[in-house]
Amino acid sequence: MSGHPMVAHEVRRARAWLSRAVEPGSVAMWRFVEEAGPVAAAAALRAGAAPPAVQALAGARVGEDTSIDDLARAERCGARLVVPEDDEWPVQALHCLTVASAREAPDAAVDRTLSLVPPLALWVRGERPLAEVVDRSVALVGARASTAYGEHVAAELAHGLAERGWTTVSGGAFGIDAAAHRGALAAGAPTVAVLACGVDRAYPASHSALFARLLDDGLLISEWPPGCAPLRHRFLVRNRLIAALTRGTVVVEAAARSGAQATAKRARDLGKQVMAVPGPVTSAMSVGCHQLLRDTERAAVLVTSATDVVAAVGRMGEGLELPAEPPARARDSLSDVARRVLDACPVRAGVPPERLAAVAGCTVVDVLRVLPALELAELVEWTGTGWRVTSTASRA
Amino acid sequence: MSGHPMVAHEVRRARAWLSRAVEPGSVAMWRFVEEAGPVAAAAALRAGAAPPAVQALAGARVGEDTSIDDLARAERCGARLVVPEDDEWPVQALHCLTVASAREAPDAAVDRTLSLVPPLALWVRGERPLAEVVDRSVALVGARASTAYGEHVAAELAHGLAERGWTTVSGGAFGIDAAAHRGALAAGAPTVAVLACGVDRAYPASHSALFARLLDDGLLISEWPPGCAPLRHRFLVRNRLIAALTRGTVVVEAAARSGAQATAKRARDLGKQVMAVPGPVTSAMSVGCHQLLRDTERAAVLVTSATDVVAAVGRMGEGLELPAEPPARARDSLSDVARRVLDACPVRAGVPPERLAAVAGCTVVDVLRVLPALELAELVEWTGTGWRVTSTASRA
Repeated sequence: MSGHPMVAHEVRRARAWLSRAVEPGSVAMWRFVEEAGPVAAAAALRAGAAPPAVQALAGARVGEDTSIDDLARAERCGARLVVPEDDEWPVQALHCLTVASAREAPDAAVDRTLSLVPPLALWVRGERPLAEVVDRSVALVGARASTAYGEHVAAELAHGLAERGWTTVSGGAFGIDAAAHRGALAAGAPTVAVLACGVDRAYPASHSALFARLLDDGLLISEWPPGCAPLRHRFLVRNRLIAALTRGTVVVEAAARSGAQATAKRARDLGKQVMAVPGPVTSAMSVGCHQLLRDTERAAVLVTSATDVVAAVGRMGEGLELPAEPPARARDSLSDVARRVLDACPVRAGVPPERLAAVAGCTVVDVLRVLPALELAELVEWTGTGWRVTSTASRA
Repeated sequence: MSGHPMVAHEVRRARAWLSRAVEPGSVAMWRFVEEAGPVAAAAALRAGAAPPAVQALAGARVGEDTSIDDLARAERCGARLVVPEDDEWPVQALHCLTVASAREAPDAAVDRTLSLVPPLALWVRGERPLAEVVDRSVALVGARASTAYGEHVAAELAHGLAERGWTTVSGGAFGIDAAAHRGALAAGAPTVAVLACGVDRAYPASHSALFARLLDDGLLISEWPPGCAPLRHRFLVRNRLIAALTRGTVVVEAAARSGAQATAKRARDLGKQVMAVPGPVTSAMSVGCHQLLRDTERAAVLVTSATDVVAAVGRMGEGLELPAEPPARARDSLSDVARRVLDACPVRAGVPPERLAAVAGCTVVDVLRVLPALELAELVEWTGTGWRVTSTASRA
């Protein structure tokens, strides 16, 4: 349970240390780790040798190292630390965060942890491989102070999605979240709760039985190491992961100006489908859904059933969230490195070779070596500011 | 109560005869009456001398003439026959039907009575002038088999519209229609029921008290003369009038594939705003509303309150339903005939001078005489197939 044996222990330990030493969601920190590598990044931060702006993000915790304890504690509760170097890392799902982080200004958001940036590592509790479970998944989110109507609809949607082979991802909270998890469980399907605290903690406490049932076949996921408390701002950081891991987000019930609308906005920013369930206009818990549906700019799709949801996430098609497979023959003739660089290319905004190297897990020299062949095969193109896949490649 | 004294009795009697002799909603019949004039048209039909296709529409009833009885019967119940020649004829509201009928193929729909064509005359019961009452009006329509939720929302919408100075128009039926009328009455505002039977009949019978209250300040309207029965197909013909007389149509509750969706489509075809109220996805009576809201082509606006409705009909702006006033100075310098011809010009599809003459109530020679001046003032333009107002004129 302690991770794939192919990944060096020092890498996993470095990322475990990072997951406690720094709050996730900072684009400056993520870039520093991507560029230096996790081991060197952790060493630099411990030595106080990281660039000042990055060093400041680690703060007082750099003197401590509880990474061995954290990994052991995870193992005791049936959890593991999944790192980007693992096979089960959800590369495809999280690609949208890599693309989004490339849009952030280089000097941006040093002081904030709400950037659309990939996680440095994920603590995962449950047996099944992470990437496989979230591959065909939809987020069902909504109010904690839900109504019986909203809970009924959330459970029905999750149940129907399960029957169609889709995984429901939610936040494990009271109300809509819990109803969604329960609906999936009732259909005998895996469901995923992305938490804002350690995966060894049941929060809310009254959900310990629900989480125990969920762990039979599903997963609890968190960016924070075991024992961490569900601090208020962590929910906002966590919400980007729910949006990123899934093909689309359904808001089942939401009050006016609620967090669910913010989650929906993030899903939209990540190129994911945003959906909302209508309800009685007399219900305060449907006001947020109706606002989403009326906001033509945000383009939320009205859904009333699991069939609607599957149709809506299906409609997103290629080109919005993930580069589709390029033509088989052109792709087959590529080297392993070239293939990884191609997979690292975003669909819309072009990114520099440095970023491609970071995502593909190779050197910048490697990237510059394979790009001409990819360009010649019309698989990638230069936008003037960076590289992206061509429409030909993403359509194929 | 028997109409404006300026309109010749023979004209009113001819239109009364036509309203019983032919079913409304036929474009061929409407064109024949527009071109020949009501008196000559009625005479030709009675003599069997109308073009065969038109004559066939009148059928066996041409031998009878109960027009004097019908007008007397109307007067006895406080009703009158309003004709296009009357001042209170709702020219502006019905303009959309004139435009729509111009789009029909010349040989089209001889055998059907569901064309988007203006009425030949309207039987109106109630004191207030028709054009004034429907000037700022919205249609609230929906299922007869409504739920308590739908009735509550319909009543609240009508009440809120009344408070904002808007008249609610509906069909006087069970369910949503009745709730809408009651909501307007509760606010002490006039409300209009457009019926598919004679205005002297209470249909449904249990609504006789509702209609009596409605007549204190509102109107009952019908294309059919007193005593006519609410035949099934007449409801469909009637529905186009509800859509046409109002600035927009709100569907409050509707089952899947219901008549309310058809009404919404007609409203859309007439350039009117289509709105729908969401409801519980668990309610069969909201399925039709949700279908309308999901149909991006039909572009229904989600409304949850009277404020939403007023904002939506306001957004339609000029150019879609009515030509706005041209610049004051250009207009003030026009002759009476020129002004009427300008008012007769549609906003989108151009129409031939014959049509302008029919709508403006003057001769084709008059139209051809004033068109050059209107064109010179950049108030009208030739589209290649007909005349319409310029964007300058309709924006001003």
